Amino acid sequence: MLNIFYAQSGGPTPVINATAQGVIEAARQNKSKIGKVFAGKNGIVGALQEELIDTSKEPLKAIANLRYTPASAFGSCRYKLRPWQENDAEYHRLIEVFSAHNIGYFFYNGGGDSQDTANKVAEFAKLKNYPLTCIGIPKTIDNDLPLTDNCPGYGSVAKYLAVSIQGVGLDVASMAATSTKIFVLEVMGRHTGWIAAASGLAATKEGQSPHIILLPEILFNEQKFLKKVATTVKQYGYCVIVVSEGIRNQQGQFLAEAGLKDAFGHTQLGGVAPVVAQLIKSSLGFKYHWAVADYLQRSARYIASKVDVEQAYALGKAAVDYALLGKNAILPVIIRSSSKPYRWKIGQASLAKVANKEKHLPRSFITKDGFGITQACKDYIAPLIQGEDYPPYKNGLPQYVTLNNILVPKKLKPFLLRK
Amino acid sequence: MLNIFYAQSGGPTPVINATAQGVIEAARQNKSKIGKVFAGKNGIVGALQEELIDTSKEPLKAIANLRYTPASAFGSCRYKLRPWQENDAEYHRLIEVFSAHNIGYFFYNGGGDSQDTANKVAEFAKLKNYPLTCIGIPKTIDNDLPLTDNCPGYGSVAKYLAVSIQGVGLDVASMAATSTKIFVLEVMGRHTGWIAAASGLAATKEGQSPHIILLPEILFNEQKFLKKVATTVKQYGYCVIVVSEGIRNQQGQFLAEAGLKDAFGHTQLGGVAPVVAQLIKSSLGFKYHWAVADYLQRSARYIASKVDVEQAYALGKAAVDYALLGKNAILPVIIRSSSKPYRWKIGQASLAKVANKEKHLPRSFITKDGFGITQACKDYIAPLIQGEDYPPYKNGLPQYVTLNNILVPKKLKPFLLRK
Repeated sequence: MLNIFYAQSGGPTPVINATAQGVIEAARQNKSKIGKVFAGKNGIVGALQEELIDTSKEPLKAIANLRYTPASAFGSCRYKLRPWQENDAEYHRLIEVFSAHNIGYFFYNGGGDSQDTANKVAEFAKLKNYPLTCIGIPKTIDNDLPLTDNCPGYGSVAKYLAVSIQGVGLDVASMAATSTKIFVLEVMGRHTGWIAAASGLAATKEGQSPHIILLPEILFNEQKFLKKVATTVKQYGYCVIVVSEGIRNQQGQFLAEAGLKDAFGHTQLGGVAPVVAQLIKSSLGFKYHWAVADYLQRSARYIASKVDVEQAYALGKAAVDYALLGKNAILPVIIRSSSKPYRWKIGQASLAKVANKEKHLPRSFITKDGFGITQACKDYIAPLIQGEDYPPYKNGLPQYVTLNNILVPKKLKPFLLRK
Repeated sequence: MLNIFYAQSGGPTPVINATAQGVIEAARQNKSKIGKVFAGKNGIVGALQEELIDTSKEPLKAIANLRYTPASAFGSCRYKLRPWQENDAEYHRLIEVFSAHNIGYFFYNGGGDSQDTANKVAEFAKLKNYPLTCIGIPKTIDNDLPLTDNCPGYGSVAKYLAVSIQGVGLDVASMAATSTKIFVLEVMGRHTGWIAAASGLAATKEGQSPHIILLPEILFNEQKFLKKVATTVKQYGYCVIVVSEGIRNQQGQFLAEAGLKDAFGHTQLGGVAPVVAQLIKSSLGFKYHWAVADYLQRSARYIASKVDVEQAYALGKAAVDYALLGKNAILPVIIRSSSKPYRWKIGQASLAKVANKEKHLPRSFITKDGFGITQACKDYIAPLIQGEDYPPYKNGLPQYVTLNNILVPKKLKPFLLRK
């Protein structure tokens, strides 16, 4: 019987381990057809270095607890394979390792880059007549994969941000009369505004925060922005702003790189929130506070969306189901049947069509002035943050699982990773 | 029957409204002895401006939901009364407003400054023979009030940070082999390290994050710090650092003010996290990420500590009980009877002894090298984050209450606040 190789790729999410759980549990339920699930230690790097984690050594309970555990339980990496047409050494190595360990299934759990890699591996295996079933599994908090209604990880980050902005909006409102009037929260999203847009769900009534959302899809217009801030403070007494790390000015420069210099005169990378806050202070004089959510937003499993957890699990299970049906070079995706009430099912898409493409916020999801989200956008995101799925707690802290991560004995010579 | 004037002061907490609930529900349960509870709109400013919110207009259910609602439900302020010995205009005004609205109880819910104000009001009323019972109620996420074992608000911020660092530690660990090795989280605490210290609860096993906690109680030693970072990365592959906004260098300067300048050459205030991260990058070369929690940490009611919520409520109720016993110029405090198992009760302290004093982290709570917390510190903080007390959710969002906040009709001429 053939084994599965499963790898987590790129930035972790609050729910990627629920996908791992889905894969492993579905494989265990098909013991007559599938061998073991080997997970790559640190993603694809684990395959190249023949560091294969034997998940069959983990107790049932540990695998079940992956549902509640953020980050990447087997380790992840940022390592992109070059096209095999240019240099096929890494692909040969993968086939060598897969062959040595009787691996017939390659499951790659990641974003656009990873789906591209999965597709290239499928092409190469076919070319070399190595029998390999390649299935991608979507994962990205950025929610920017095409052909799937949404991406696992996004719903939980969306919930974290909507809930955070709801609370912080009340906080600022209650002090604004005599103190801080401006609050700026920087969130992830270098190319697309899905994450920032989600904070807009916090505003369920006119005037509630966030009052302004700055999206990478809209070039930053300083004068228009300052006018909007001034109007908002006049009308509501305060102004809460959510800004994507990736917003750019009219010249196309990242605002985060345009502003601050350190003591040595080096440009300080990252940190668009202080740039925006300082701009308001120097132009309008309002007292401000700012925050940068960074990794806090993608590791906040304690406030995960139940829908997101369930979809992450279902996609992992679907990867096994599709593999058993003999599908190749595809990925399971989420198909939305209805928004109200929310209904979804699993479908499939071709890896070639998903690879390396970015789905931006459609213009119809952004308000006319470019500073907010429309009802259509809310209708799209709202179902994805539904439901709570709290981890178990002990002594006041979530009980996340740490796996044993026992490696399969190596059979091959070492392989040198490129730098 | 005499009415109560209740005001919230200074920065909000996730649980200050539970204290308000305690006051209002206890007063309603003593309808034969106490009149109405009037809340100051925007704190003490509401008393000076005769903007009194009539809480008797709020339905039972709305008051009950204060338990789940972060921020200051009646508004808060940063406005410190001058000593009456220097200028007694504001004190005369308070007495005028209290007298006009039959107010015989003054409850002031805040930190050290506010307890000082409550004490001054008590002195002045006595001097003028105005019958006023003045009770302070502790509140501060900084946990720096003396004579109380801990302060409401702190436990929830402590829980938020411990839980956040636990998740983020797993995240960084899972990517460190090929990507980010350093994560820096900036937390509140300008003068004391209680908040930063709480993140140390996340490390329940050797090697877990946070690896370094930078506290305002310890002057920052750059060389020693960099050495510790290098050693930690060597040993564990990554290093998670929590830094108090208020850390100072050997010259006593705030690090947050020492580093960055904006495009105009102005010093950028706030943001010690990027300064620390950049220092590591330029000295050791490690890839970093950083986050600034700012108001996110003090508005995160969704991850509040149950112990904290219960204590906040109990202190509000105790204020009414003490007032009915005829106590004056005191505040109810938390007394710890035992840490394991955790047992606490309400006691009382004199306003004069609490006012304007700051409780620092004792040296015995800080590890010898100055970069962490000791077991004694963990034993102290751990009980304060126990238990979860989730708000009710609808459509994926907490259902926080917004009060009607109906003002009592004014009877007096306007009063001009000093700038």
